Amino acid sequence: MLKRVVVAPSGFKESLSAPAAADAIAAGVRRVLPDAEIDRIPLVDGGEGTAAALARATGGRLVALAATGPVGEPVGTHFALLGGGQDTAVVEMAAVAGLSLVPRTRRDPGATTTYGVGELIRAALDAGVRRIVVGCGDSGTSDGGAGALQALGVRLLDGEGVELPFGGRELWRIARVDASGLDPRLGGVELVVACNPYNVLCGERGVARVFGPQKGATPRQVEELSAGLENWARVLTRDLAVTGVDLRLGRGTGASGGLGAGLASLGAALVPRFPVLLDHLGLDERLARADLVVTAEGALDRQTPRGKVPGEVARRAKLAGRPVLAIAGTLGEGAAEVPGVDACQGILPGPMELAEALVRGAELLTDATERALRLIALGARLPAGQG
Amino acid sequence: MLKRVVVAPSGFKESLSAPAAADAIAAGVRRVLPDAEIDRIPLVDGGEGTAAALARATGGRLVALAATGPVGEPVGTHFALLGGGQDTAVVEMAAVAGLSLVPRTRRDPGATTTYGVGELIRAALDAGVRRIVVGCGDSGTSDGGAGALQALGVRLLDGEGVELPFGGRELWRIARVDASGLDPRLGGVELVVACNPYNVLCGERGVARVFGPQKGATPRQVEELSAGLENWARVLTRDLAVTGVDLRLGRGTGASGGLGAGLASLGAALVPRFPVLLDHLGLDERLARADLVVTAEGALDRQTPRGKVPGEVARRAKLAGRPVLAIAGTLGEGAAEVPGVDACQGILPGPMELAEALVRGAELLTDATERALRLIALGARLPAGQG
Repeated sequence: MLKRVVVAPSGFKESLSAPAAADAIAAGVRRVLPDAEIDRIPLVDGGEGTAAALARATGGRLVALAATGPVGEPVGTHFALLGGGQDTAVVEMAAVAGLSLVPRTRRDPGATTTYGVGELIRAALDAGVRRIVVGCGDSGTSDGGAGALQALGVRLLDGEGVELPFGGRELWRIARVDASGLDPRLGGVELVVACNPYNVLCGERGVARVFGPQKGATPRQVEELSAGLENWARVLTRDLAVTGVDLRLGRGTGASGGLGAGLASLGAALVPRFPVLLDHLGLDERLARADLVVTAEGALDRQTPRGKVPGEVARRAKLAGRPVLAIAGTLGEGAAEVPGVDACQGILPGPMELAEALVRGAELLTDATERALRLIALGARLPAGQG
Repeated sequence: MLKRVVVAPSGFKESLSAPAAADAIAAGVRRVLPDAEIDRIPLVDGGEGTAAALARATGGRLVALAATGPVGEPVGTHFALLGGGQDTAVVEMAAVAGLSLVPRTRRDPGATTTYGVGELIRAALDAGVRRIVVGCGDSGTSDGGAGALQALGVRLLDGEGVELPFGGRELWRIARVDASGLDPRLGGVELVVACNPYNVLCGERGVARVFGPQKGATPRQVEELSAGLENWARVLTRDLAVTGVDLRLGRGTGASGGLGAGLASLGAALVPRFPVLLDHLGLDERLARADLVVTAEGALDRQTPRGKVPGEVARRAKLAGRPVLAIAGTLGEGAAEVPGVDACQGILPGPMELAEALVRGAELLTDATERALRLIALGARLPAGQG
């Protein structure tokens, strides 16, 4: 019935990495279609696992080092040097400033820093690459990229000329930036920020209001942060940005707590993440050969078409005319109307609490895949005259 | 793709009646197949709603009356006179001795009585029918049918010749039965007990051990009840039963807390419920015309093939060569291996507690049906060369 199935999921947050999700889905497909060729493409969105996945997919390698973590303490981290003669480094911000590196007791998004991201960029410059791709997503920071700029040699000064400490909370005090110490090697590389273009720095859909609460901010902290980021955008635009990009509301400026805006002020290109990331995986060519495409993520809802992995997979699969099944732990509002998705499937076999579902993720995903494939197989066996 | 869909669900206990479940499923089918002919067959298993459903299906009527409820207080109840010149009454035991008639604070299965069932049988005799079908299921009693026999004129006597009070707990004391006062009209009718043949009165799979805890018995009460029912079977066999039926372990003797055994001792035939009940609905003829059969119940598991509605529907549909989709609130162990079921589907869209799922039953069932039909439709659209 189905000779070739492409399995292209995202990870399931707090439950399954993308490779583990791909394995779980493949096991379910196998139960129904033991002879099908299954092409697993664990997908990355710039967040956790991106550097490792792209190093593996391109035959490159990871470079390990220590850098400053989001709460200011050193952490072990890494960046990727891609293979295939691409002369490209991938810096995954989550590997040095991700939410999972912020202890639960210290989830104050006004205090965390992207300093380590700047250190990783410097390390990539040390490696002599021609192009640096910064992957965004799963961040634990909201400092507008201030820390990253500091690590790259930019001084952030208050009204009395004193350097600001770490954290987005301090940004309401910034009076000017001094870029005279900026690492000059940045002028010789292509700096690309792979981001969700729907994330913007300021305003009602800005970093502080949309992500602040998720990262642990109180309502008052959200307002402080919002004001600080407004001031940050104003000063950066005046003192540093030369490219004419709108640092407040430009597409992707809000990526990773505003890291997008900070790097854009240095001339980085903010580009939609999927073309940058997925082309390394040969996704389109592989989708085009599929009889069925199975994608998945923790949740499927109205956000899915707005820059989420299953939305992107479905969009691309549809361009190639391939049928798409999307599986999710939670089918929210709008799950049934994601463009390009022909059918969706939840993984819960019955009433169950989230905590149990997270622990049993792989088993539930395999069983749900089997159920969905049996339904598809049922349809495929219907007499052709009714087709 | 699918011109004619038969929707033949059971009810979802504590959430949806069978007709409501059929409506919810039909709404989901309609979303995907707006032009399909949908044949709704809400199914009954002998329990709650059986009398009303069969009266409606045959063009008969319900007769309302008051009788003794399971805790000994009067309740409003009814029995059915079937239409179509069948000269048959249907007595639904749950309508007068069902678990839902036992207040939660009085769930002591050693104390409840089937006296009202005997009263309903007498009322059916008053109506002059030739055949009385007793539907079992959803019972709140475990008295071995003792109450029903009392209402029909049998005296249950202890060692001192004193009549026993209500309740299975008393049966360890019974010394003999006196059937001299038995309603003589019983000899002139066919008395049929429609039951799940897997339910037996005594032993490890007997009423007390399997259903006692569900009906609120403590472990000690289970043992008391078990001993009482053993004694009950012994005395009935000695003093009353003439048919040679094994009242302890015969098929169906455990139906409705042992009502099967009690009525069998009067000569009632214990017959598998589905042939008796479903033939009134023309089920086989309607299944034979289906392009797809959708059945459903609250749970799908290893018990499903053992006398549950979806198991029976799937078995019959398979005899007719029809594809079967089974939908359930909870997919338990063995859900994927129910004979005759081609594919199954859970209704939960994400982590959710049972209480919420029960309240949102109709909506969840409709959405889940839509998802399943979209998967079937996806399969039906696959290129025929891969079929």
